Amino acid sequence: MPVPGPGYSITIRVEAPPSASAAGDLTSAVGRVGGVITAFDVVESHADRVVVDITCNATSAGHANEITAALGELPGVAVRKVSDRTFLIHLGGKLEVHSKVALRNRDDLSRAYTPGVARVCQAIAANPEDARRLTIKRNTVAVVTDGSAVLGLGNIGPAASLPVMEGKAVLFKKFADVDAWPIVLDTQDTQEIIRTVELIAPAYAGINLEDIAAPRCFEIEARLREKLDIPVFHDDQHGTAIVVVAALRNALKVVAKPLEDCKIVVCGVGAAGSAIIRLLLHRKPKDIIAVDINGIVHAGRGDLDSNLEQIAANTNKDGMSGRLHDALVGADVFIGVSAPNLFGAEQVKTMAKDPVIFALANPDPEIDPLEAQQHAAIVATGRSDYPNQINNVLAFPGVFRGLLDAQAHTITDSMLLAAADAIADVADGDRINASFIVPSVFDAAVAPAVAEAVKKAATSKD
Amino acid sequence: MPVPGPGYSITIRVEAPPSASAAGDLTSAVGRVGGVITAFDVVESHADRVVVDITCNATSAGHANEITAALGELPGVAVRKVSDRTFLIHLGGKLEVHSKVALRNRDDLSRAYTPGVARVCQAIAANPEDARRLTIKRNTVAVVTDGSAVLGLGNIGPAASLPVMEGKAVLFKKFADVDAWPIVLDTQDTQEIIRTVELIAPAYAGINLEDIAAPRCFEIEARLREKLDIPVFHDDQHGTAIVVVAALRNALKVVAKPLEDCKIVVCGVGAAGSAIIRLLLHRKPKDIIAVDINGIVHAGRGDLDSNLEQIAANTNKDGMSGRLHDALVGADVFIGVSAPNLFGAEQVKTMAKDPVIFALANPDPEIDPLEAQQHAAIVATGRSDYPNQINNVLAFPGVFRGLLDAQAHTITDSMLLAAADAIADVADGDRINASFIVPSVFDAAVAPAVAEAVKKAATSKD
Repeated sequence: MPVPGPGYSITIRVEAPPSASAAGDLTSAVGRVGGVITAFDVVESHADRVVVDITCNATSAGHANEITAALGELPGVAVRKVSDRTFLIHLGGKLEVHSKVALRNRDDLSRAYTPGVARVCQAIAANPEDARRLTIKRNTVAVVTDGSAVLGLGNIGPAASLPVMEGKAVLFKKFADVDAWPIVLDTQDTQEIIRTVELIAPAYAGINLEDIAAPRCFEIEARLREKLDIPVFHDDQHGTAIVVVAALRNALKVVAKPLEDCKIVVCGVGAAGSAIIRLLLHRKPKDIIAVDINGIVHAGRGDLDSNLEQIAANTNKDGMSGRLHDALVGADVFIGVSAPNLFGAEQVKTMAKDPVIFALANPDPEIDPLEAQQHAAIVATGRSDYPNQINNVLAFPGVFRGLLDAQAHTITDSMLLAAADAIADVADGDRINASFIVPSVFDAAVAPAVAEAVKKAATSKD
Repeated sequence: MPVPGPGYSITIRVEAPPSASAAGDLTSAVGRVGGVITAFDVVESHADRVVVDITCNATSAGHANEITAALGELPGVAVRKVSDRTFLIHLGGKLEVHSKVALRNRDDLSRAYTPGVARVCQAIAANPEDARRLTIKRNTVAVVTDGSAVLGLGNIGPAASLPVMEGKAVLFKKFADVDAWPIVLDTQDTQEIIRTVELIAPAYAGINLEDIAAPRCFEIEARLREKLDIPVFHDDQHGTAIVVVAALRNALKVVAKPLEDCKIVVCGVGAAGSAIIRLLLHRKPKDIIAVDINGIVHAGRGDLDSNLEQIAANTNKDGMSGRLHDALVGADVFIGVSAPNLFGAEQVKTMAKDPVIFALANPDPEIDPLEAQQHAAIVATGRSDYPNQINNVLAFPGVFRGLLDAQAHTITDSMLLAAADAIADVADGDRINASFIVPSVFDAAVAPAVAEAVKKAATSKD
């Protein structure tokens, strides 16, 4: 049963009688049908009536209608209008293009545009690296998607994915002062995506690939990294991997287990799962068991694509086969980036002592977090309504800030690991415990720490 | 000989003795070598010295060095540093991406990003037209170039063209509150350009093609107009054509000649010239004679591409052949968008009574404007240092404002003509005269008037 949240927040304007009981009647009516009131504002008060804005959280469109109906049924109450706050803030889009230069008069125009601008163009033509100094390229990242794997919504296409890409750009700006621009592509052909990103790249100092389905995303990223002289980062892969590695470092510190002694089950081997496995391997765990919808990944399975073949070659040292429940037996860590409700307390009990469970499927995790908490030492999810939220927002703004500041031409796993350690360090110290293994997404210390770490890794001679 | 202008403005910081004559000595030194001082600021004053910022206009890098040297040679004067104001305003680029939504807390995040944003995505997936209401598409235009014909600089490529495209976006914002974003393409292949613009189009409500060489620009525009459901406008063609048609309407009013009685010579049949001819034909002049580097365009010339063939079929009713100087004999109007110094007073004298001359080659016109002014009734150029500047800035911001406000899916010649008339109307009235046939680019009335006219044309049933 979903909980009313601010993602579905409505404001209902009603006229009510000016009686002493009006406020109580109105708020009680909302409460009876499960709405959670967050604001109550009297906007007009007359001798014969009051006009009130009631803002409340709902769970769905149907629930919002139910709340509205409950108010309308009160004696003497009339509903004037209902506004959906989420839609209201999206009107006209979430981004605008600002000019950094004033254009007050003809002299300003002569410098920002013709004829003055010609000299700036010539300087860049003579020395292309100057584009990083004299154009938006210095601070600008493209957020590129084909709309094929958007949030939990799946393949909704480019136009419908735009609100997510705009939101991403809002986060880039808010947390790391990076200018990010959405590029939503009207194709899902791998080669066309690669070529298009290559063709638009000159204006950008970095490419953030977003919500592109696996396995297409692997080839797109790999080919673009070969072709472009700017860093290419698929957030669904590496953003998630960075935050998981950070959270796992702190979780294992809390339970006092060295990573080298841990058997880790990774469930879901799409974009995120594959990247998590690859990044974790640098930290040399005792073993990783990858599991997908067809069971445990092992070299002999016969249905492996090139991505899974590579993973099989580097995990599952004993060549184990079977299903998820088999993999969990004796495991120290479960990391799920797959599907809802795959296991329960029964299976947690088969894991090693003090198990760590990252159940990251959204919005419904691989195991009910409350059930997991009863038997596991540490539980993390992708949700904001439980402790230990694993959220990419902790990684990508700082990562790109660091890459831009370093004027990096590539991105490497050592930079991703540096980012993970920086996130873990912000939470670490006396503060970490089973309910606090990663910092809050609103912790202002995170992005600068990540940026500094990435910049250092990018500019070190190693 | 170029004139010092604000496009080449430098600030020279010098230390000088604190003598009474210091200011005079410094400014005289700049003046002697041809620098034009625009500001003189004492930034520090000590018993033994003063520190002064001298800002002046120069003509070139060599000239700036000459001015700096002249100051350094004065007794007791030391140059501390020289800043180029044009480069200074370009540092880090001229645009940034602003967020229109606040992200103060987790509730804001839940609405602008997950989970709330998912409902907005779903609404657009269900009804794609909602992208114009709920995303940046509502107010955003792509400024697209391949860097092949940038200003007078020619084929300088995508990165070097970026300062111009950013400048264009600054103008869009300043004059019409349009969000414009530069797309600089790393290809000059016609088919690739068409396909790439098609693929990135979902985020935009209009495409402004910019500085793409002819004849490639014609096919790109025509094909994109077929393929896309948003207006496609090549500013080098139509922006110029709109302002020329506007200026010509007022010019002919001043000299009291009906357009239907005029023979018009158009010199230069690239992007701008072709579009000027096509738009003028709607106004039914007596005849147009097109002239290019190979002489007068006529059906029998044998070297015509499809663009010139079409023009030949609609101009030069008498099938005249010859050179520019032949075409000018008896012509009422000359419109040049070609090359510097093609004719002089001699040829102007062969034109009809009260000739109108638009010599728009930049920075050096087809005829010296001062020479033209001695014999012509009206002279216009593309330059800001003579009367009657024909500048696209008068057209494109208002045109796109009108298209966006109308949520137009296409752009038609009737909209371009409406824009031209709107520009002419702003200058018209008692105000127009031989030195004032178009409004100033800083006339705040222009863009709203153009927007209104275009919107009306776009939404009319005709």
